[in-house]
Amino acid sequence: MKIRNLTPAITNIDKAVLRIGSEPLEYYRTWKFNGLLHFCDMLLQRILGIDGYNVSFLTASGTGAMDAVICNYVEKTDKILILDRGTFGKRWSDICSFYDITHTIAYSIGKVKEAITNNEVNILLMQGTETSTGEKLLTDEIKALCKQHSVKLIVDAMSYLFVDSLDASDIDICIVSSQKGLSLFPGLSIVLSKAGIEAKPKSYYLDLTKYMNTYQDLCLPFTPAVVVLKQLCYRLGQINKEKLAYIDRYALQAIHFRKLMEDLPVEMPIESKSNCATLVRVPSKQGKIKTFFEALQKKRIYITPTGATTGDTLLVGHIGDLTQEDNLALFKEMDKWLKE
Amino acid sequence: MKIRNLTPAITNIDKAVLRIGSEPLEYYRTWKFNGLLHFCDMLLQRILGIDGYNVSFLTASGTGAMDAVICNYVEKTDKILILDRGTFGKRWSDICSFYDITHTIAYSIGKVKEAITNNEVNILLMQGTETSTGEKLLTDEIKALCKQHSVKLIVDAMSYLFVDSLDASDIDICIVSSQKGLSLFPGLSIVLSKAGIEAKPKSYYLDLTKYMNTYQDLCLPFTPAVVVLKQLCYRLGQINKEKLAYIDRYALQAIHFRKLMEDLPVEMPIESKSNCATLVRVPSKQGKIKTFFEALQKKRIYITPTGATTGDTLLVGHIGDLTQEDNLALFKEMDKWLKE
Repeated sequence: MKIRNLTPAITNIDKAVLRIGSEPLEYYRTWKFNGLLHFCDMLLQRILGIDGYNVSFLTASGTGAMDAVICNYVEKTDKILILDRGTFGKRWSDICSFYDITHTIAYSIGKVKEAITNNEVNILLMQGTETSTGEKLLTDEIKALCKQHSVKLIVDAMSYLFVDSLDASDIDICIVSSQKGLSLFPGLSIVLSKAGIEAKPKSYYLDLTKYMNTYQDLCLPFTPAVVVLKQLCYRLGQINKEKLAYIDRYALQAIHFRKLMEDLPVEMPIESKSNCATLVRVPSKQGKIKTFFEALQKKRIYITPTGATTGDTLLVGHIGDLTQEDNLALFKEMDKWLKE
Repeated sequence: MKIRNLTPAITNIDKAVLRIGSEPLEYYRTWKFNGLLHFCDMLLQRILGIDGYNVSFLTASGTGAMDAVICNYVEKTDKILILDRGTFGKRWSDICSFYDITHTIAYSIGKVKEAITNNEVNILLMQGTETSTGEKLLTDEIKALCKQHSVKLIVDAMSYLFVDSLDASDIDICIVSSQKGLSLFPGLSIVLSKAGIEAKPKSYYLDLTKYMNTYQDLCLPFTPAVVVLKQLCYRLGQINKEKLAYIDRYALQAIHFRKLMEDLPVEMPIESKSNCATLVRVPSKQGKIKTFFEALQKKRIYITPTGATTGDTLLVGHIGDLTQEDNLALFKEMDKWLKE
């Protein structure tokens, strides 16, 4: 039975990248492997329209990279604003709280604009796209406002870059993870930070000064995620060739799914929809989401039951190696379930 | 050309485990994946002869797990002794220094015994086997001494467990990594800590209380290293069946290599040799190790040039999917080089 990963947590991965997962490993303290990292660095920056950024390849999940950002670039004396529009917005705030870093939380874009305009902050922490709801948050307006008021813009761009946009310009620091739009194995996260922004590490493992550019002289600090980095190299080559067509595929997948939903008695409450995922509200199934989630698993269809045991929402992802046929398979199950 | 990873950094991986790297990924917040983690936890403890330990599966390199141990189990008020017999012994000390944790360094086992006997310490940080030299360090005597003097024994067992020993009993806290004796992809590290030892997390990402047993209720904190965990499950099944035969294979590989070395004008300076690796001193090639290392790479033979640019030693690993034929291939190259 075909696996259909329609969670935006991890993705269906195409055969070419999976094949890399079956190749013998080569030692990494070699000029050859350094070349691979150098190539990844160069392609990343070219694709994302940035230049001279410091790139750190971390063996960690996305949260590891979020933690690294806080532990390297945020000081207790900073005036920090966090945009919280869901699980991952809250995670920025959880990490700051963990380290006793005072911060203000804005629950809407409007409040963010207000605080910046009033010069109340010098760092903004936000998501490019909030994975837990599929809401696209980063706009040119926010970028411009941060620039105008000299606010350091730090973006968790995990579900944004390579999904909604290939543009990281005017972001001061951003993070991406291997398992989202890049559709690779999980276990690799990347921090990109604009030249000149000083890192003041407060974690040993997540000390970004150890990772930045160190591949240039065979000085990788710790064992890298060798396999995922090889996959990354392949994927970036592909994206560099396909350009926007790479993320257009996700856009089409999202549009097709949303079109299908129009025929069902459901709502799509998020206004600013990303290519990453669609939040679907099923008012008639309040408290019954989990059962559906588990029934789907038996057919190897995976979605995220954001409603869990009490709510009425589920999240459907559009990233990775998916086709309209995967959307239709889920649609069929939803249709049946809604008629029960 | 066949790749021969004779570094003990990452290993040659057998076909069965590589095949798992080419399989489609399944979502991990499911009872099925929890079952896999539960099975890994159970098998790990059964194989290592321990019971009721807390197991944390971290998406991180081995150093991430070392950092996690310091950030969860070591307090500034502790009287810490570190055995430093090479790169990784020094790493324990580097991590403590990074966090301003006062510690004493012992450069010999003798000094460790002395300090414990004199009741000068309450925590001992050491390596089971020091990977950078292949020296086996942990003994029953050390274990007994720690027990007798109520010293918390914390062991970086990355190159020790599943290589030199399948016995973790009487170790209070130990860490293993996926890419050594287990011969899997890098990117997964495991912390095992005896029941009742309290974790006081000082890192958000490396907060072990978030990882321990959380799989039991679908509460994995962050994206796990899905592929490596699937490989781990397979490998532990194999080891559980083969028992000591699994590490005997490494022992035979080491013995065969050392026998070959006896025919060359080289020395093996480490007395307490592990199954993990052999340090080889080549007095006639002082300062020329790097050139040899790079020549070998062209034949896809990888060793670790511990002597680098100025020294006269190299390190040859015996772990992973290697055969006597791999030893012979390296021997042939060394023989030729030594006659140059």
